[in-house]
Amino acid sequence: MKSIEWKVTATDGEARAGTLRTRRSTIETPVFMPVGTQGAVKGIRFEWLEDELDARVILGNTYHLFLRPGNDVIRNLGGLHKFTSWKRSILTDSGGFQVFSLSDLRKLTEEGVEFRSHIDGSKQFLSPEISMDVQATLGSEIVMVFDECPPGQAGVEETRRSLELTTRWAKRSKERFNELQDAGQDTGFIADASSLSGQQALFGIVQGASHLELRKESLDRTVEIGFDGYAIGGLSVGEEKPVMYGVLEHLAPQMPVDAPRYLMGVGTPEDLVEAVARGVDMFDCVIPTRNGRTGSAFTSRGKLNIRNARFIDDPNPLDPDCSCSVCRRYSLAYLRHLYQAGEMSASTLISHHNVAFFLDTMRSVRQSITSGTFSSFRREFLTKLQENQETRV
Amino acid sequence: MKSIEWKVTATDGEARAGTLRTRRSTIETPVFMPVGTQGAVKGIRFEWLEDELDARVILGNTYHLFLRPGNDVIRNLGGLHKFTSWKRSILTDSGGFQVFSLSDLRKLTEEGVEFRSHIDGSKQFLSPEISMDVQATLGSEIVMVFDECPPGQAGVEETRRSLELTTRWAKRSKERFNELQDAGQDTGFIADASSLSGQQALFGIVQGASHLELRKESLDRTVEIGFDGYAIGGLSVGEEKPVMYGVLEHLAPQMPVDAPRYLMGVGTPEDLVEAVARGVDMFDCVIPTRNGRTGSAFTSRGKLNIRNARFIDDPNPLDPDCSCSVCRRYSLAYLRHLYQAGEMSASTLISHHNVAFFLDTMRSVRQSITSGTFSSFRREFLTKLQENQETRV
Repeated sequence: MKSIEWKVTATDGEARAGTLRTRRSTIETPVFMPVGTQGAVKGIRFEWLEDELDARVILGNTYHLFLRPGNDVIRNLGGLHKFTSWKRSILTDSGGFQVFSLSDLRKLTEEGVEFRSHIDGSKQFLSPEISMDVQATLGSEIVMVFDECPPGQAGVEETRRSLELTTRWAKRSKERFNELQDAGQDTGFIADASSLSGQQALFGIVQGASHLELRKESLDRTVEIGFDGYAIGGLSVGEEKPVMYGVLEHLAPQMPVDAPRYLMGVGTPEDLVEAVARGVDMFDCVIPTRNGRTGSAFTSRGKLNIRNARFIDDPNPLDPDCSCSVCRRYSLAYLRHLYQAGEMSASTLISHHNVAFFLDTMRSVRQSITSGTFSSFRREFLTKLQENQETRV
Repeated sequence: MKSIEWKVTATDGEARAGTLRTRRSTIETPVFMPVGTQGAVKGIRFEWLEDELDARVILGNTYHLFLRPGNDVIRNLGGLHKFTSWKRSILTDSGGFQVFSLSDLRKLTEEGVEFRSHIDGSKQFLSPEISMDVQATLGSEIVMVFDECPPGQAGVEETRRSLELTTRWAKRSKERFNELQDAGQDTGFIADASSLSGQQALFGIVQGASHLELRKESLDRTVEIGFDGYAIGGLSVGEEKPVMYGVLEHLAPQMPVDAPRYLMGVGTPEDLVEAVARGVDMFDCVIPTRNGRTGSAFTSRGKLNIRNARFIDDPNPLDPDCSCSVCRRYSLAYLRHLYQAGEMSASTLISHHNVAFFLDTMRSVRQSITSGTFSSFRREFLTKLQENQETRV
């Protein structure tokens, strides 16, 4: 039995609508996964994510949870679902990306990577095996292989070296993952998961920076190892937008049709729609909540900054086209006041709206694919974002 | 027609259970009013306050809202209810207390008080008339007279001088208040308020520091002016606990039976229960939310500090006797992790529980008064707080 069930329900050009069933929820794609870095989606209570926003899957960060509260605490408490009380699906990343972006004094070897915690400077070690151990302890529905992520501007030589290592680590990840599943180490296991195995799924990651031939090679070798889904890593890490779109355009349509395609750490609403147009199904990004905390709202008419003086007595909502609980109730004037007054409700309310906007955008995208109108949806969506952008910021 | 309707529905010793009906809600007393200093109860969305916590009245601070966003913005937007979207009752203080506790460079004259804003240092002026103007603009259900609050340890001479000024200011407050009501300046006016006038209510404030004879004189002279309700100001401002209880014991039972009695800015759960025992009906205090933000939780077994290492893998809720949405779902271990990780959800969730605990405590107090068991409730409540306190902190 499989750990997840994937069905493409409609296509429109390269864009796909699908259904991803895990042991804990049914996820309609294209999907945006809110990021719960440290076991919480910043500023948004799970109750809202479940009841109003209807997020079916959130992300958890292995790096952060490995350092705090640590593997032992989470295992003692029965895994990440029990620890956090989030009952739907969780996708955990492998820790690789954060090790390379957040920590100091890294020492990369064939075995893994030694680094110093960004929290307390303590010496730590992660490897494919340890990452799989931690993710089994977390008990997420979707586990990511442990990879190395080269910089966006990496040259061919550096990218190839990295790709080779990532490929070897992918094999080791899969081996350990299988051992852990067999040994029952996954805290999230469900004995009776109606026609699913109840175990975790494992996704591979395609690297290769901006080098199309290396991307293709990475894809082929990753598919050869064989995973339940395939992610595109190493984008939105400093390269220009056209480079990212170019990689996606080249790569996504060549990815297996019968598995979900996940673009890691991306991006803006425009990025999401553009990536769906190139065949991507899954996304995650911190920007809805990160921008929410700095007073920046995503709307159907472009981004706005709540600090703008013109909102001081504006009784309109953040986005007149949004039906989220924040837009139904709170005015720009009120939200601006909360922000200026240093009230944390400004952060929580704008973050809430932003996540609602991302999830709603993906629902509209899905709907348009299903009804065969994705091209016109995409054109109108992007035009509306751009036309109004200037007048709002 | 009256602006509010007050009924005592049961008594037990000096303790009273009552019903206070305003133009916007029916408030069952004894009541704790969550503080919405700047138009938001810090960290708790109105949706929770309405649906789960069922707060019928919250407090707004004239001083803060006068400085930011300012009277003009709030009037343009139709008053505090429309501005914030809070539809139930609001009690606004007069700004007096904050002028004396928060601002710099005060210059007190017969006319009023000049001060510098704690936000930007700008020169500002508040007087009984201006405070009434601002509170009419805010459109709160209950308006407080503008008073001077002497320090808790003030001597007889200083207290008498202050009391005389407060009494003159109370008269001026009432005069201006009546003019504003007649002139229709109250933004919260409701034309059809079912047997109520639809106008604002005005509460007087009894001062006199710890001097019982001056307290009595202040009470008599305030009652002589005549208000819809009577508050006790100038307690919990640095004096010892027995002093506060002594003043309450002396003063509250002498206050008019046919009007609500409001103890301003108090206090801990113990304080609330002790003050109810002496005849007080209404309370407000920032401590449930302020302590929530620093990880300090009020529970039926005393206070606890979420940072305590013993909670690191404790699967129990903050308070096993609490049925709030936080205690039903989240563990000490998870809340501690959120706090240690700097997640703002730690603040919002603990604040939520704390407000739930205060509101629930008042509901239990009311129930015990109604059933004539307040004395035993009080004894058991206080014993339970103290017995467990040591083992928890």
